[in-house]
Amino acid sequence: LALKGSNYAGLLERHRIHTKNVEHVVESLQNEKIEVRLVKRREYNEETVRWADAVISAGGDGTMLLAASKIFDKFKPVIGVNTDPERSEGHLCLPVRYTHSFPEALQKLYRGEFRWQWRQRIRLYLEGTGINPAPVDLHEQQLSQEQHSRAHINERLQDQRSDISGPHLLPVRALNEVFIGESLSSRYAVCSVLFRENFKSCKPSFKFSLHRASYYEISVDDGPWEKQKSSGLNVCTGTGSKAWSYNINKVAHQAVEEILKIAKKHGSLNMPLNTELVQKVTNDYNESLLYSPEEPKMFFSIREPIVNRVFSSSRQRGFSSKVCVRSRCWDACMVVDGGTSFEFNDGAIASIMIDTEDALCTVLLEE
Amino acid sequence: LALKGSNYAGLLERHRIHTKNVEHVVESLQNEKIEVRLVKRREYNEETVRWADAVISAGGDGTMLLAASKIFDKFKPVIGVNTDPERSEGHLCLPVRYTHSFPEALQKLYRGEFRWQWRQRIRLYLEGTGINPAPVDLHEQQLSQEQHSRAHINERLQDQRSDISGPHLLPVRALNEVFIGESLSSRYAVCSVLFRENFKSCKPSFKFSLHRASYYEISVDDGPWEKQKSSGLNVCTGTGSKAWSYNINKVAHQAVEEILKIAKKHGSLNMPLNTELVQKVTNDYNESLLYSPEEPKMFFSIREPIVNRVFSSSRQRGFSSKVCVRSRCWDACMVVDGGTSFEFNDGAIASIMIDTEDALCTVLLEE
Repeated sequence: LALKGSNYAGLLERHRIHTKNVEHVVESLQNEKIEVRLVKRREYNEETVRWADAVISAGGDGTMLLAASKIFDKFKPVIGVNTDPERSEGHLCLPVRYTHSFPEALQKLYRGEFRWQWRQRIRLYLEGTGINPAPVDLHEQQLSQEQHSRAHINERLQDQRSDISGPHLLPVRALNEVFIGESLSSRYAVCSVLFRENFKSCKPSFKFSLHRASYYEISVDDGPWEKQKSSGLNVCTGTGSKAWSYNINKVAHQAVEEILKIAKKHGSLNMPLNTELVQKVTNDYNESLLYSPEEPKMFFSIREPIVNRVFSSSRQRGFSSKVCVRSRCWDACMVVDGGTSFEFNDGAIASIMIDTEDALCTVLLEE
Repeated sequence: LALKGSNYAGLLERHRIHTKNVEHVVESLQNEKIEVRLVKRREYNEETVRWADAVISAGGDGTMLLAASKIFDKFKPVIGVNTDPERSEGHLCLPVRYTHSFPEALQKLYRGEFRWQWRQRIRLYLEGTGINPAPVDLHEQQLSQEQHSRAHINERLQDQRSDISGPHLLPVRALNEVFIGESLSSRYAVCSVLFRENFKSCKPSFKFSLHRASYYEISVDDGPWEKQKSSGLNVCTGTGSKAWSYNINKVAHQAVEEILKIAKKHGSLNMPLNTELVQKVTNDYNESLLYSPEEPKMFFSIREPIVNRVFSSSRQRGFSSKVCVRSRCWDACMVVDGGTSFEFNDGAIASIMIDTEDALCTVLLEE
């Protein structure tokens, strides 16, 4: 890591802070005579979840997502503790002050000074030709992109997919989002077209790994199918509306200012264009992108849509109760909460929706 | 490819169309008694460029970028022919009608019915500790991301970088853009922090390959340094303002409509909010993102900036004559026109600017 130019000492320091905070949580629980099993992410499995009355994730949002990914019981609460408050945001975790005073959180739970928060999750159905409903758990495999793509291909060759018709309910639920996009090995296929060489000798172009375009068709709420070309498609929950989806869609103060200036130029603004107004409009717009984790609806975003003489794009984002996607991709993945990946190539159709049966049980402490 | 679900017949058809169009160009030139060397991208090298009075790229924009990447002579014109007009946009190529009537284009050149278009290009200086000014040519190497990262590391181990201080002028010029972001193997390092395991056993998280956050500091036009966390940084030329940069920054009709609605709600709109106004504002805003390839200025965009309790972000995009970036990345790359990559890790500082000496000579046919 040092060779790579990374700050090894800094890394180690973050690791120590994390370890200290984990110990605090474990001790607080044991002081309350609560039986505790401390498991590392690789040891965290269905058996552990069955055994536990509640799961506490110690880390950041990534750790919380991993913890949630194994919980299918609507009544098995999961609680997140942010073990690096200075460096991690931790939307999914308890307020940071409880990191250092976890006993206080426990007391509130005992005294019932909290309410259950049922975070809605997304379920996926996969159908079509050449699909493979077998997930690749990206948490559990140390794969290069190359290997990752091979992993998919091997499974594909092993399983008897020929007559899979579907729809198949996939064995995962998304707490944050489902992302559909070309996986990185796709550049091989793309280049074989772009550079017109015989396919065997075709070269990769890094451009398509950093900015690979995805081709697919989308139907929102059973509406008409639309061809799309973009940097991928993000479908999120209320929980995920604060995460990647927010960064994809939020507008900058600067952009709003320019837009209002243009509107003013067209003589359609009567107010003086002051910073206060721009800030209010920016905040209102960006807040409109957020919604409650408990609302059983999804928000989809087409990321960096490519609109030109060849491709057009109409509705680029919005709330929806059902999104269907037909893949026109070379070597695409459907990735759930950044943790589980399904191949999603030409011929495959995904139906993305929310079923309240899938909600995740979390707690909101009263302040 | 068929196994992957790709349309092999379709691919082959595009290949045939391309081949036919290339032959048309070559024959048109030979009919004019012009000596022609037809080279595939792997055979295209400095010697060929030296030999030629002019370079004609036959393909799409990707092929044109590759052709330009080897031309450092300000007076060696390069002309792009779009060999798949139905499927490729070809911003950098001649108007599509010349694909099938190339002799007409030649006649215009003979009759002087054109003007030279000097497309400005970006140059890069690299300095700091642990930098490696040796490029990795991604066109010429068939690498998986894994191998790609190793390729960098090997060079790093081979060369004597210890006392490299810089600034080093890098041996490339960007016609479209320079992109700085975490390369894909970065997820190993990122996860070692996120999941707090001992570094050896740390697992990848696909999230960071699809949506890897990049940490860096940026200074625009010698202004103050600002910490940033985002999905990368794009610095483009006027030529590149029509490419990736445009897709990153353009606003949707839908977003403008919502923004103006909010402004109206705040009582600052007197005009009725009709589609025509929204369309006008949207077009004006998006057109303001485009500028002439000949203008010696750059446009920078922070991609999906992450703003939260831990990170803040002020100016997210704008024109600039000089952008300096200090890497705080684990395993980042600086990628030029998607074709050439330089490692860009913690300790490295890049200075990004335009020198009119680097302009690329192209032609604009009179219509």
